[in-house]
Amino acid sequence: MTGEPSPAAPLPAARPLTGEAALLSRILPRLALPSLAADGRVEVGPGDDAAVVRLPSDRLVVTTDTLVEGFDFLPHATTPAWIGRKAAVQNLADVAAMGARPLALVVALSAPADTPPGTLEQLSAALAEQAAADGAHVVGGDLGRADRLTLTVTALGAMGHGDTPVLRSGGRAGDVLAIGSDRLGRSAAGLALILAGRARVAPDGAVALEGIRTPGAADLVRHHDAPEVDLSLGWSAGRTAHAMMDLSDGLVRDGRRLAAASQVAIDLDPAALEDDVRVLAALADELGTDPATDPWDWVLHGGEEHAMLAAFAPGEVPVGFRPVGRLLPAGPAGPSLTLGGREVAGEGFDHFG
Amino acid sequence: MTGEPSPAAPLPAARPLTGEAALLSRILPRLALPSLAADGRVEVGPGDDAAVVRLPSDRLVVTTDTLVEGFDFLPHATTPAWIGRKAAVQNLADVAAMGARPLALVVALSAPADTPPGTLEQLSAALAEQAAADGAHVVGGDLGRADRLTLTVTALGAMGHGDTPVLRSGGRAGDVLAIGSDRLGRSAAGLALILAGRARVAPDGAVALEGIRTPGAADLVRHHDAPEVDLSLGWSAGRTAHAMMDLSDGLVRDGRRLAAASQVAIDLDPAALEDDVRVLAALADELGTDPATDPWDWVLHGGEEHAMLAAFAPGEVPVGFRPVGRLLPAGPAGPSLTLGGREVAGEGFDHFG
Repeated sequence: MTGEPSPAAPLPAARPLTGEAALLSRILPRLALPSLAADGRVEVGPGDDAAVVRLPSDRLVVTTDTLVEGFDFLPHATTPAWIGRKAAVQNLADVAAMGARPLALVVALSAPADTPPGTLEQLSAALAEQAAADGAHVVGGDLGRADRLTLTVTALGAMGHGDTPVLRSGGRAGDVLAIGSDRLGRSAAGLALILAGRARVAPDGAVALEGIRTPGAADLVRHHDAPEVDLSLGWSAGRTAHAMMDLSDGLVRDGRRLAAASQVAIDLDPAALEDDVRVLAALADELGTDPATDPWDWVLHGGEEHAMLAAFAPGEVPVGFRPVGRLLPAGPAGPSLTLGGREVAGEGFDHFG
Repeated sequence: MTGEPSPAAPLPAARPLTGEAALLSRILPRLALPSLAADGRVEVGPGDDAAVVRLPSDRLVVTTDTLVEGFDFLPHATTPAWIGRKAAVQNLADVAAMGARPLALVVALSAPADTPPGTLEQLSAALAEQAAADGAHVVGGDLGRADRLTLTVTALGAMGHGDTPVLRSGGRAGDVLAIGSDRLGRSAAGLALILAGRARVAPDGAVALEGIRTPGAADLVRHHDAPEVDLSLGWSAGRTAHAMMDLSDGLVRDGRRLAAASQVAIDLDPAALEDDVRVLAALADELGTDPATDPWDWVLHGGEEHAMLAAFAPGEVPVGFRPVGRLLPAGPAGPSLTLGGREVAGEGFDHFG
């Protein structure tokens, strides 16, 4: 609040944009892409108390996720644009994993007062572009102060008319567990490069690697920072799945969640994952013998892939998915997850672990 | 990620809940009130990738807002429950200000690793209770790490079947500007007590005041921390308004926004605000002569009241609202806001001011 003792002291009528208004005037055009106005679904966009969106059905899908500087990303190891893309992807993936189409996003952005406006502009523009690529618009937001850049995206989607959501709980013994990704473990390998201090990212997205010769290592960092994943599998082929979720916290941790929700046992097939492990082996060698750089660990426990993990009837795994395991009747001890019939060590990612 | 070198090392099958899972197991029951399961509108609540909510119409209303420890609240001057209530109110108010009924909330909560679980439980329970009081359920969320407690709520509402939103832009010259609150300036006065170091709040909500004898001063602190406001005015009587918004950033700043959106001049009536000022005068005297403690400043520029500010046809101000000014044709310099025909100094609250 700006303190002014008298309610009636004269002030010039024309006021330049300062503070929050000036920042918003730079960010809003980045969020409201030209396609927004042309989209009849967005009845009220940014600028009023709330946005109003017309849905194609009465079944609304909603999810929310936060990225915090220093906890969920490191400024020296990513770019503002990639932060925006990742925030969009991780939320859109949750909508897609219900078998729904993304429709709209709202974005709450908190930043230190000295954040360069260009940082917020680049982040906002990339977030809006990523959303648009999956059919969603940024329809509203909030701008406030914090001492670390913090970004909460809420994604809205809608089920198709008459469609029901694809839950985690619909898996059946006999189903095939399949993943909508060619390669697992890449995000974790990229993170390992960052945490080992071997990767720095310039503001333009150039990845500088220190003492790493493995081809494609820079792509792993990029994939960790801004995962590229075909989310449309969720609302297209994935709709035939009995159960579906997105891979956020690792194949083992998320697989256990699907097993628990569906009351089944899941057995991952080591042979199905050997190629994923093999292509990361050279990088693991370069990074040394730290257990956290074991490529099996990256593939089994690596989070933030956001690919669709789904259970299909046998013989009905659609194009875009590949089998990685089977659903079996739960044993006497209840739902479980194994790898080739054996217990798996490790738990995947835990914010409070 | 928990690093484990071997994918096949044996582990006990039963795992105690630790970390994120343990925290969620304490928080989720607080969010998912018994009424949630009984409400047919919530098809999928917390626990899957996203929530699924059935809407009464195809017009979805959505808004988002963040509270950050140290910027939007001070731990020694509020309680976890009040933080939760305020986060709910400020978002529900935005939905109400569109003339829509709140339906659901999602909550993204980031906290330091050493946050007492009880803090998150109390915050979550109060947030869910406040939402329920206005007809909304907490249907999903996100839990992550940060070095300050940070809370982003996204509120969803729906227009009634066939209803259109009440925008800021519908005000017409001749309308009466009215506020859905008996008293303005209370939140700002409460904040002044806190910022002057004269108020401390115990975890149980007891307000200790230092050297303040004005009756009702503790209520001002409580009102700042967890405003009590009749939001139902938005989706009931407020639906007859030509224009409506909620009072977030002060009567002057928000009034200017309504004037700009409606392309009118607004003249506030000093006589209509004199009672609001008078009841705060004794407290202002006790706090001394700092210009920021001028009661006119609290009434004109005080934010975070979240009452409905609306423009009605003359003679049609409904019960629950009281007139505070008039809408006039904009002058040659465009939309403006005056107090008794004179310019008003000050700008209200600005995050980046």
